[in-house]
Amino acid sequence: MAEPVVVDAMGGDHGPAETVGGAVTALREHGVPVVLVGRAGEILRELARHDAAGEIDVVHADEVVPMNERGAGAVASVGSSLRVGCELVRQGAGSAFVSAGSTGAVVSCAIRGIGRAQSVLRPALAIALPSVTGGATVLIDAGATSDPTPEMIAQFAVLGASYAQLVLGVADPSVGLLSIGSEPGKGNRLTRRTEELLPALPFRFHGNVEGHDVLAGTVDVIVTDGFTGNVVLKNVEGSVRAALTLVAQSGVAGPEALREVARRYDPESHGGAALLGLSGTVVVAHGSSRAPTIARACVVARDLAGGGVVSRVRDHLTVEPVIS
Amino acid sequence: MAEPVVVDAMGGDHGPAETVGGAVTALREHGVPVVLVGRAGEILRELARHDAAGEIDVVHADEVVPMNERGAGAVASVGSSLRVGCELVRQGAGSAFVSAGSTGAVVSCAIRGIGRAQSVLRPALAIALPSVTGGATVLIDAGATSDPTPEMIAQFAVLGASYAQLVLGVADPSVGLLSIGSEPGKGNRLTRRTEELLPALPFRFHGNVEGHDVLAGTVDVIVTDGFTGNVVLKNVEGSVRAALTLVAQSGVAGPEALREVARRYDPESHGGAALLGLSGTVVVAHGSSRAPTIARACVVARDLAGGGVVSRVRDHLTVEPVIS
Repeated sequence: MAEPVVVDAMGGDHGPAETVGGAVTALREHGVPVVLVGRAGEILRELARHDAAGEIDVVHADEVVPMNERGAGAVASVGSSLRVGCELVRQGAGSAFVSAGSTGAVVSCAIRGIGRAQSVLRPALAIALPSVTGGATVLIDAGATSDPTPEMIAQFAVLGASYAQLVLGVADPSVGLLSIGSEPGKGNRLTRRTEELLPALPFRFHGNVEGHDVLAGTVDVIVTDGFTGNVVLKNVEGSVRAALTLVAQSGVAGPEALREVARRYDPESHGGAALLGLSGTVVVAHGSSRAPTIARACVVARDLAGGGVVSRVRDHLTVEPVIS
Repeated sequence: MAEPVVVDAMGGDHGPAETVGGAVTALREHGVPVVLVGRAGEILRELARHDAAGEIDVVHADEVVPMNERGAGAVASVGSSLRVGCELVRQGAGSAFVSAGSTGAVVSCAIRGIGRAQSVLRPALAIALPSVTGGATVLIDAGATSDPTPEMIAQFAVLGASYAQLVLGVADPSVGLLSIGSEPGKGNRLTRRTEELLPALPFRFHGNVEGHDVLAGTVDVIVTDGFTGNVVLKNVEGSVRAALTLVAQSGVAGPEALREVARRYDPESHGGAALLGLSGTVVVAHGSSRAPTIARACVVARDLAGGGVVSRVRDHLTVEPVIS
């Protein structure tokens, strides 16, 4: 049997009240083996509420990283559920880590605490953005690696295509390279060199896409460096919010109706941002997640961990060892 | 008297019918000296309609660059109003060039045809984006130079601050560096090196800003490289359009009300994108511009050309000669 998914019981706005319920649902309804990490007393109390005492292993961690400790600069303390959870995955006691903590804190803690998978040069953050056509487009890298080489971006493309297959169920995903013109050769030095690597990889390479393609459903995966990807992710959020504010100011639509549209584009509400390329998968659920969303994140984590995402990179990209 | 503003009579969706009227308004109501470039017969007929025959010089150019020739790859033919207009500015017969042609075609033609100003390393495209607070934020570089050095971006910041002063009337503009975290030192190699250069320059350096600040009115000017700036510009357009599509699909607002919001964020409707750092200023008006918008673009071009934008760069940034 596969190693369990480690769930950060203390992450998110609602803490164990929702995370424990999510873990129980993941186990009972989806057959995902789970371990809960956090304050044992609180977790056991919640497990009892679900009649699940003894059903799920609990690993105690005393500290909690506050939700307002945002940004990649956040350092999780040694005794925190974040650090302990990542350590379990590093040791191989868990296949994946799920947290509803702040994305920046989870990502930086996981990169330091779990470590890169062999053959993957750098990790990347994949986020599925809903598109106007009703589907979703995976944006990768949304902020894990800000200065990648073309070879790293090529790996991100393979990771992103795997995400589209395993999580979104797209059999034969198309991948676009984010650039500033759709014609071949358009872009900067980094994209031009990357563009040469992508046609040989195991997905349909669509060619270059542009900023307006991010939400248009043009491709299944948009690959870019973590700097541009993070700027774009936050720009999507800010632009959608600005448009809705202007609509609200114009008085043609009520704030409640607009809030629903806004929620779809909240940068952390895409049902699980996944940090790929470490020796264990990490899924970051939205801070406001309730139990069903945590359960869904556990399923995504199990599918990604079991999908051999990293081995696909190894199979298709021979990489030179680099000095990190 | 200053050299006149050269107006591309053939640019835009409406051609001479609107551009000539705009030039006449610029001259009569705003005292902007102008020259019209394009098919002399059509221009003279329009001038006669305005009782302005003999008031404005006309330079004949037989060819017209079609509006659908978009993108930086568009090459304007030698006899086109674009090429002839840029040549007039290069020769010093005009201080600035105004066109409602496609941004990509105008920018690439101007960079090749007008040439860099002494002391400016590379040109940058400045675009004023309306912010939700009611003001505007200048995005520079929105796509002219895709691989700048930190020194070039520092120059873009000076150019952008000048644009905010001369066009938007902001006395003491604040400038933010687009990055992936607001804390000092956040970003990639390029932004970290650029961040060190900006505090010494003649504007209030706000520090780093993020993708969600672009439309939020956080600062007066956002400076970035032309790759990221162009991706962001097009992403703003696409994200706003996506949000409005979703609102329309939800049925809470009529398409007409939404169209007005959409128009504000059309990438070319910001009342004049300005290409700065060449030996003559270039203002690109929206393709759908009517006469008043063309007249306004002429005023902007005159103000930018007379404002000594390039000399501000020279005064504050000693640059080493580079091999282009």
